[in-house]
Amino acid sequence: MEKISNYIEKNRERFLNELFELIRIPSISTQSEHKNDMRRAAEQYKKFLLQAGADKAEVMPTAGNPVVYAEKIVGSSKPTVLIYGHYDVMPADPLELWKSPPFEPEIRDGKIYARGADDDKGQGFMHVKAFETLIRTNMLPVNVKFMIEGEEEIGSVSLEGFCQTHKELLKSDIVLVSDTGMIASDIPTITVGLRGLAYWQVEVTGPDRDLHSGLYGGAVANPVNVLSKLIASMTDENNHIAIPGFYDDVLNVSEKERELMNSAPFDEEEYKKSINVEELQGEKGYTTTERTGIRPSFDVCGIWGGYSGEGAKTILPSKATAKISSRLVPNQDYRKIAQLFESYFKEIAPKSVKVNVKYLHGGQAYVCPINLPAYKAAEKAFQKVYGKLPIPKRSGGSIPVISTFENVLGVKSILIGFGLDSDSIHSPNENYPVSHFYKGIETIAWFYQYFAEKF
Amino acid sequence: MEKISNYIEKNRERFLNELFELIRIPSISTQSEHKNDMRRAAEQYKKFLLQAGADKAEVMPTAGNPVVYAEKIVGSSKPTVLIYGHYDVMPADPLELWKSPPFEPEIRDGKIYARGADDDKGQGFMHVKAFETLIRTNMLPVNVKFMIEGEEEIGSVSLEGFCQTHKELLKSDIVLVSDTGMIASDIPTITVGLRGLAYWQVEVTGPDRDLHSGLYGGAVANPVNVLSKLIASMTDENNHIAIPGFYDDVLNVSEKERELMNSAPFDEEEYKKSINVEELQGEKGYTTTERTGIRPSFDVCGIWGGYSGEGAKTILPSKATAKISSRLVPNQDYRKIAQLFESYFKEIAPKSVKVNVKYLHGGQAYVCPINLPAYKAAEKAFQKVYGKLPIPKRSGGSIPVISTFENVLGVKSILIGFGLDSDSIHSPNENYPVSHFYKGIETIAWFYQYFAEKF
Repeated sequence: MEKISNYIEKNRERFLNELFELIRIPSISTQSEHKNDMRRAAEQYKKFLLQAGADKAEVMPTAGNPVVYAEKIVGSSKPTVLIYGHYDVMPADPLELWKSPPFEPEIRDGKIYARGADDDKGQGFMHVKAFETLIRTNMLPVNVKFMIEGEEEIGSVSLEGFCQTHKELLKSDIVLVSDTGMIASDIPTITVGLRGLAYWQVEVTGPDRDLHSGLYGGAVANPVNVLSKLIASMTDENNHIAIPGFYDDVLNVSEKERELMNSAPFDEEEYKKSINVEELQGEKGYTTTERTGIRPSFDVCGIWGGYSGEGAKTILPSKATAKISSRLVPNQDYRKIAQLFESYFKEIAPKSVKVNVKYLHGGQAYVCPINLPAYKAAEKAFQKVYGKLPIPKRSGGSIPVISTFENVLGVKSILIGFGLDSDSIHSPNENYPVSHFYKGIETIAWFYQYFAEKF
Repeated sequence: MEKISNYIEKNRERFLNELFELIRIPSISTQSEHKNDMRRAAEQYKKFLLQAGADKAEVMPTAGNPVVYAEKIVGSSKPTVLIYGHYDVMPADPLELWKSPPFEPEIRDGKIYARGADDDKGQGFMHVKAFETLIRTNMLPVNVKFMIEGEEEIGSVSLEGFCQTHKELLKSDIVLVSDTGMIASDIPTITVGLRGLAYWQVEVTGPDRDLHSGLYGGAVANPVNVLSKLIASMTDENNHIAIPGFYDDVLNVSEKERELMNSAPFDEEEYKKSINVEELQGEKGYTTTERTGIRPSFDVCGIWGGYSGEGAKTILPSKATAKISSRLVPNQDYRKIAQLFESYFKEIAPKSVKVNVKYLHGGQAYVCPINLPAYKAAEKAFQKVYGKLPIPKRSGGSIPVISTFENVLGVKSILIGFGLDSDSIHSPNENYPVSHFYKGIETIAWFYQYFAEKF
């Protein structure tokens, strides 16, 4: 039974080089100039899946970026695992903050530095290598299907349609995903909750051109001042979201579950130090773990308007724009929240400006029951490789498709992630510890063994 | 006595071509890449002043951009007029909104379109041409000095020092300035009040890098949300500025003066239409004329932070920045206001972020008494050229140096401006009616005649 670790050990270098090939393709889904890189990344994944031993692999069209589908069927009576991942990545800007080029992976202090090193090329590719390991060692006990999409970072806009069209093809007993994190390097973690998401772009227009702030200032509404007031009105002094009806569907979590949640290891001083802030700030009455785990949030992701160049330009700007996202919790419907926000924003905007609210994307929150057979199999795999039981964790992040899988394909997902908070995903200098890459491959390979037994 | 209008008529085309030469130099003082253009513009002014007939003209150093000084002394017993203007201009962005290139002047519908067409190359250059007209027609009755600076748009930071160093050289009986506007093309206007100014750049820093808005959102202060709250807190629901002590030194204007002020022609519907807004917004209890004339204002001139690219990037930004200006009224001290804002901004900022307030520049407000001999001379000059008396007006704009002239040189200023609200100064498609250019030259030439009589 040491075949698994032996095979990984023997192929260490090649596994890493192949991952680097994938990372070098700047597959940024939110920027249309990278359209061609999306296809290149998909084709590269297909190539690696065929080399790993898939019966077939295809780059399949969707309404947007293509999906890579691959499969290996070992027997019609065997259970089937559907691997989900994504080959697209976040934009790399601000580029000047990167210590090495974002699409030229570099290893420093045992970590791979690159955009996508963790999210989700590093984590997604572990599944290709675990799959190869089991095929090449004749140890694959179940059927495996791969569905690797190219639009996760822009809300998986085409994946629901893809799932609906290919229900039969995607038939499976469990979806296995590595796109989440661990509490710490030595604390294996299974994510049992994900937040939902709603994302908007709002625009406030005042005068039809920038005005002289002296001649008009005080008499004409300033769109930046107005947008600031509108954003400020969305939360109250307790950092509670002030949109009417926003919390109506939020499930209250029992005192007991909150206690359990707060007993997980968490060092607030360490946490503050890791992001260099002196104080934390969040909803009154909740701990940091609760604020990201079981409570919704309201964040401006970007804002711009008026003059941002050198020196002082005395204008009253014509326009101000912001990108705003809200993380949601189980039972909140993202479509309803999208509507509530839009109504409130428009309602409280003064008539002295025109406002435009554009809903960009969203998705539902998710909860995974810890008595699921797949959960138990994952638990054993972690115990085998890490020597200890994993901790079930509610993450603040969102993977909107997870609820789509449940609704459309009728199948639960199990989220075994190997990332760390310090991986800086979505930020400059994203990184992923090399050791996590190899341990992840090993854990996934063991998951299949226990899952086959359990099922 | 028709010599003046004849000379102008005969040289119409050349006057305009010379102005265009000046406009083509992109002398944007707030952008350091235009350092060389500042000198080029100054040298060009010097050349034109010598050609016009100045005894001497020099480009003189200051702590910043140089000042063009020129003079024509007709007799030591004669009164002396000091012309003030500026050769620097505002940045031209957003460039995409210009219908013709900002530094390639173009005449459309009787208007010169270009950055600086009005502010202040168009208006400043009228003085050079009025000066030439009187010299060439042997009609210059007084001594004339020119002081044309290159930092007006960045707060005239070096001019106070220049005035202090060259008090004797700049000795004069009145400062004459054309850098303001008329109520309408057929309503000559003398600006008797200017607002003061204070300008800051503020920066709010949260975490030391952009964070994933899912993993951290709700637990860590978002600098854009915080900056929005801080900006929102600077004004109340009546658009009254909420900074403690802000109004302490504001002089109350008598009911009678307010009545007089509000009797000046003002068409609110026309005003709203001209900037394409449906409603005006300003301090409760004051009319639009009062809001820009006798009341202070608080405007964000620019804001930026986080992601502003295509699509949806789900981050909690590390930083948010804003440029903020406040227009002040007579008796408010800009240094005191600068301090009050900084203290309040820092006081109300939560400890979850770091804030930085950088004071960029400012200046005092100004009032000109309407019984000044120079005011009377200007009144007669307008009556001569326009056939009617000018209206004394309090402008919302600021020319901070005007109070410097009073304090350092001990001399009052008279502001005869020929711009229109529709000139879009500081905005894309700045323009200046050609007829205003010529009528301005004529009015200025007549001013000298009446000023010599009156004095």
